[in-house]
Amino acid sequence: MKIIQNDLVSQLKTIIPEDQVTANPTVLELHSKDESYHTPHFPDVVVFPKSTEEVSEIMKFANENQIPVTPFGLGTSLEGHAIPYHGGISLDFQLMNSVLEVRPADFLVRVQPGVTRSQLNKVLKKHGLFFTVDPGADATLGGMAATNASGTTSVRYGIMRDQVRDLEVVLADGRIIHTGSMTAKSSSGYHISGLFVGSEGTLGIFTELILRVYGIPEVITAARAVFPTVEDAVTAVVSTLSAGIPIARMELVDARSIKQVNLYNNTDYPEEPTLFIEFHGSDAGLKYDVDFAQKLAMENGCKEFLFETDSKARSQLWEVRHNLAYAFVHKSPGKKMMVTDVCVPISELVGAIQDARAAIDESGMDGAIVGHVGDGNYHVILMIDLNDPKEMEKAKNLNAHLVDYALNRGGSCTGEHGVGVGKRGYQRKEHGEALDIMKGIKDVLDPKGILNPGKIFID
Amino acid sequence: MKIIQNDLVSQLKTIIPEDQVTANPTVLELHSKDESYHTPHFPDVVVFPKSTEEVSEIMKFANENQIPVTPFGLGTSLEGHAIPYHGGISLDFQLMNSVLEVRPADFLVRVQPGVTRSQLNKVLKKHGLFFTVDPGADATLGGMAATNASGTTSVRYGIMRDQVRDLEVVLADGRIIHTGSMTAKSSSGYHISGLFVGSEGTLGIFTELILRVYGIPEVITAARAVFPTVEDAVTAVVSTLSAGIPIARMELVDARSIKQVNLYNNTDYPEEPTLFIEFHGSDAGLKYDVDFAQKLAMENGCKEFLFETDSKARSQLWEVRHNLAYAFVHKSPGKKMMVTDVCVPISELVGAIQDARAAIDESGMDGAIVGHVGDGNYHVILMIDLNDPKEMEKAKNLNAHLVDYALNRGGSCTGEHGVGVGKRGYQRKEHGEALDIMKGIKDVLDPKGILNPGKIFID
Repeated sequence: MKIIQNDLVSQLKTIIPEDQVTANPTVLELHSKDESYHTPHFPDVVVFPKSTEEVSEIMKFANENQIPVTPFGLGTSLEGHAIPYHGGISLDFQLMNSVLEVRPADFLVRVQPGVTRSQLNKVLKKHGLFFTVDPGADATLGGMAATNASGTTSVRYGIMRDQVRDLEVVLADGRIIHTGSMTAKSSSGYHISGLFVGSEGTLGIFTELILRVYGIPEVITAARAVFPTVEDAVTAVVSTLSAGIPIARMELVDARSIKQVNLYNNTDYPEEPTLFIEFHGSDAGLKYDVDFAQKLAMENGCKEFLFETDSKARSQLWEVRHNLAYAFVHKSPGKKMMVTDVCVPISELVGAIQDARAAIDESGMDGAIVGHVGDGNYHVILMIDLNDPKEMEKAKNLNAHLVDYALNRGGSCTGEHGVGVGKRGYQRKEHGEALDIMKGIKDVLDPKGILNPGKIFID
Repeated sequence: MKIIQNDLVSQLKTIIPEDQVTANPTVLELHSKDESYHTPHFPDVVVFPKSTEEVSEIMKFANENQIPVTPFGLGTSLEGHAIPYHGGISLDFQLMNSVLEVRPADFLVRVQPGVTRSQLNKVLKKHGLFFTVDPGADATLGGMAATNASGTTSVRYGIMRDQVRDLEVVLADGRIIHTGSMTAKSSSGYHISGLFVGSEGTLGIFTELILRVYGIPEVITAARAVFPTVEDAVTAVVSTLSAGIPIARMELVDARSIKQVNLYNNTDYPEEPTLFIEFHGSDAGLKYDVDFAQKLAMENGCKEFLFETDSKARSQLWEVRHNLAYAFVHKSPGKKMMVTDVCVPISELVGAIQDARAAIDESGMDGAIVGHVGDGNYHVILMIDLNDPKEMEKAKNLNAHLVDYALNRGGSCTGEHGVGVGKRGYQRKEHGEALDIMKGIKDVLDPKGILNPGKIFID
């Protein structure tokens, strides 16, 4: 960076309105961190653009002066994506938060990047539509596209990348492009929409998104199925997927984690591996699906299969899954949550979860295991004391162990949280020489290295 | 190219076994064309690699000597992808046609690029699985990935890109990379699998594919629904999609096209816009889906809704759709088929099909219209005399008119056939400055421009 902070602020104020540029220490501090355990770092300035044109002007200025730019949504990243380790500009999209257009017949919506998924769903509800991707946090859609977020519903509706039809992107040098179109499919040119989704702010800045949406299902039924072993539960999942039953969510929680919820909530759920399932469909079709899924679960050793369709009863049935993280947070005041995120082929999931449980227990730490089991993606939720180097070390070793286990079995180091800074060190092992191709693409799109430097690639 | 043909053949024979290299004129002629109306061009040599290592050696040699390389599957392209306009090597994958591994629990299969989809489905059937993408032609899976093929089933199961988990790719300089993993999802690094799919041999050569497969549905039901207008038919489609009914195929055929089938087959199908539908599901669930779809069709003016579950009866019900192209081919002996391929947002489909019909009629040519209507993708099938410059001109003008219509409404110039040479001229209009980004990526991956030169980009 060639400009000192004071000059940076004053020069930016000549480009966009003064009240959209600040170096207020409180604001800087808010933009120095995310929800992860990664070390905070202050930006030099926070800018709040109101339009694509403003973003373009900011990028032209930043590129000319080699100033790092890190996009910021709501800071819900779990891998440090929004932390500006090289300082420079934190580009906050909270003023670009409009739902621009709903096209019900096309099952499409056009939004600005600062719109959150709950905000979008509120608008869509009036049209009988909903946005499917649910990563837990009420993240911004720009952030979700940048990290290729997914979550509990991707087994049915796909991940964030599957929903993105078109992105308006401001490139490092301020050029504005569109990556796709409004069509359901296309074989025209390279699929750069898919390339930008998951690029974590390192290839360009998203200023508009066209996203796929779905009709709200007529009926939603939730179920909870208890199994004697993780293996039985996963086998039931594979049978259900093979049969083509359109499961909308399918979450595995291991026995130890349910025990923690019981302790915290004073409940008495069976402390055994449990599947939390959600079915979306029409009245008659769903009855059949639920019956069939129950039959398959029972054939695979299920001891208890409960289901509910009423909204409140559904919520209660899923209580354990919803309260899981909180049950661990509650017992560890002052600690920070660290969430691992590997993904394996489904055939490797039983072994992976058993290995993860053994590794957690061996480490002496306490941790929940929850899996988006239809996708082979699971998380270990650990509570760690950031000021205890020994505990940090243990947690990092456990994370590394889980990643190695997955990579040795055709898996991925991150199923949905992204690379950020936390998974940079595993990129070479996972991608081999393909990492050089990725870096080559990065260098073409951002020759001066100003776009979210320090993420995905090791500097 | 720096080497003359004789030297090229003899040098290649020092790299891989002699019987896998030929400049036999008949073989060259077979590799000079595809199923399209585009002008043939001979390669200098045809090479039949047997392994990834051989492909790598060929690419090292070709890159060093700046020799164009054009991959060849079965030549079913409709846009000239496999025609080696710059001569050089035609790389034919017929000896790399093994299904390497089936992983039923992972719903994955690992294949070589020369495997055809019917060959794969024969193997998968034993496992109760099937590969969903059905572009009509029995193309190779390498070719289908290279063009991002889709077809009738993509409304339910997605396009080729959605099925590709990992590609083994030999780069222009002979390096071998893997683009993905075996997991259902990943947020690790840039999504280069999606970039290579649809790159039409211009970024690298596929030597292995890991593809997603599905359980064979318990029951398949076919239906035919006749509507008074195209608008009514499309409105019924949107209602059905909104209701979340899991339709596996949904094809629209226009009235003029059915008339041609009646003439050719001596049948008396109602000469009105007709939807051909296929439902995949379980016994009870499907009954409900078909009833519901019928109800929605009737609410939208449907005059006749027939359905059949028995395999032979299903086939008969879809007879018109199956015989459509042939009915036009039959009446035009000596002519070649030209198939247009635009895609529009569904809300624009009614207007697009009405406009297409008017444009065909105005041109004085005869043409069928068939639409993958759930995707907004439709084809005009024209029979043209390649030796009649006036007719060629008319057909090209019609194609250009349809593309412009689509691009002016947020559409794409190709829904599933790819760019090849036929859609190069529309890339700038469709992609704007994004085309420069695509070209930048091409130059990083293929700095000497040897990979299928003359495709996607205008030289």
